Amino acid sequence: MFRTTLTVKTHGEGEIVDITDETRRIVRESGTEEGLVNLFITGSTAALTTTEFEPGVLSDLKRALSVAAPDGIVYAHDSRWGDGNGRSHVKASLVGPSITIPVGGGEPMLGTWQQVVLLELDVRPDRTRTIICTVTG
Amino acid sequence: MFRTTLTVKTHGEGEIVDITDETRRIVRESGTEEGLVNLFITGSTAALTTTEFEPGVLSDLKRALSVAAPDGIVYAHDSRWGDGNGRSHVKASLVGPSITIPVGGGEPMLGTWQQVVLLELDVRPDRTRTIICTVTG
Amino acid sequence: MFRTTLTVKTHGEGEIVDITDETRRIVRESGTEEGLVNLFITGSTAALTTTEFEPGVLSDLKRALSVAAPDGIVYAHDSRWGDGNGRSHVKASLVGPSITIPVGGGEPMLGTWQQVVLLELDVRPDRTRTIICTVTG
Repeated sequence: MFRTTLTVKTHGEGEIVDITDETRRIVRESGTEEGLVNLFITGSTAALTTTEFEPGVLSDLKRALSVAAPDGIVYAHDSRWGDGNGRSHVKASLVGPSITIPVGGGEPMLGTWQQVVLLELDVRPDRTRTIICTVTG
Repeated sequence: MFRTTLTVKTHGEGEIVDITDETRRIVRESGTEEGLVNLFITGSTAALTTTEFEPGVLSDLKRALSVAAPDGIVYAHDSRWGDGNGRSHVKASLVGPSITIPVGGGEPMLGTWQQVVLLELDVRPDRTRTIICTVTG
Repeated sequence: MFRTTLTVKTHGEGEIVDITDETRRIVRESGTEEGLVNLFITGSTAALTTTEFEPGVLSDLKRALSVAAPDGIVYAHDSRWGDGNGRSHVKASLVGPSITIPVGGGEPMLGTWQQVVLLELDVRPDRTRTIICTVTG
C-alpha cells in the first residue's frame, strides 16, 4: 500500500480542477503496476468525480448541480449558522467524496476523454483542499 | 482483511443516521493502522454518503433529493407494484450504496466537519438496515 | 488480485443494463471467497450504480436524471463541439463511474432486490462499453 496526500489550492465556488496528472504522478510514484487508486477528499463542501475536462461540460455540470441546490433559495444550514454555503454542502453530498480507479500497466485506467476532477463547491474565495490518495495492489 | 456487518434501525423516510462513531469503532476493532474501509449498504432504497451532520444541512439535503424525485408525482414503479417508494429507489440510485474511506493512524481519515451518514429513503416507518464493512490494509 | 474487462454493447440513450450476473461470474472466476470487487466504467457518458432492476424504477430513474439535465435546453458542450451529448456528460458525472461491492462466500454481497447496472447516457445509437473489474481479497 502506498499513501500520500495531494494538496490543491482552489479559488472559489464552482471551480473544477483537473487532478488527472497528479493522480498519474502518484500512481507512478507508488510503483504499482496492477491495482487500484482510491482518492478521498476531506471536508464536506467539495467532491470528486470524473468528466471530460472541457469548458462547456464544466459549465453544464455547474448548472445541473444548481438545479438540485439553487443559489437564490433559503437554506436551513445558512439560517442556523450564517455560513452561506448551504448549497455547497448539498452538492458535495450528492456527488460524493471518493472515487476508486483501477491501475494497469502502472497508470490509472481512465478513458481517453475522462479526467479526474475536484469540484470546489464552497463559497469562500480561497481554500486549500486535501485529497488522500491510496494505491493498493 | 477485516469484515463485519453493521445493523442500523431506521424510523422512516428522510431519516439521516450518523454512522461515524460505528465506523471508527469498526476500524479500531480491525486493528488496521493504514488502509481503507469500504462501507456498502444492501438494499435499493437507502444510500451512504458524507456530510456535516447538522440539522440544517440534513434538511437541505432532503429538499434537494426531492427536486430530482418529488413526492407528488406518479412513479412508474408505484403504478406497477403499489409500493409507494418509487421516489426512494430513484434517490438511492443517484446517491449510491457504497463509500470507501482511507484509514490512517488507526482511524477513518475524515474531515473535522465530515460525518459518514446513512440516508433512509424508504417510506416504511421502521426498517433494519445492513451495512457491510470491509477494512483492508 | 484478479483483473478482467467486461465488454457491454449498448443500444442508445437511457438504456440500463443489468450486469449483476456478469459481476457474479467474474467474482466466481476470481476464486475470491472474501474481499471486494471494484467496477469502473471508462468514458465520460456512462455510469454505474445499483437499483432494483424493474422497468418502472428504470423509467423513474431516467426521468429524475432529466430533471438535472433536461433534453430541451442549450448545453455549452454542444454549442462548442456539436456532439449533442452535453446532457450525457452531466448525468454521468453526477452518478459516477465506479462502484465497490463486498464479496462474501464467493459472491457479491448485494441485497435481494439490488442489481448492479450500467447506465448508457450517450446519444449515439450503438456503443461498446468497457468496465474494468478488479477483485481483491
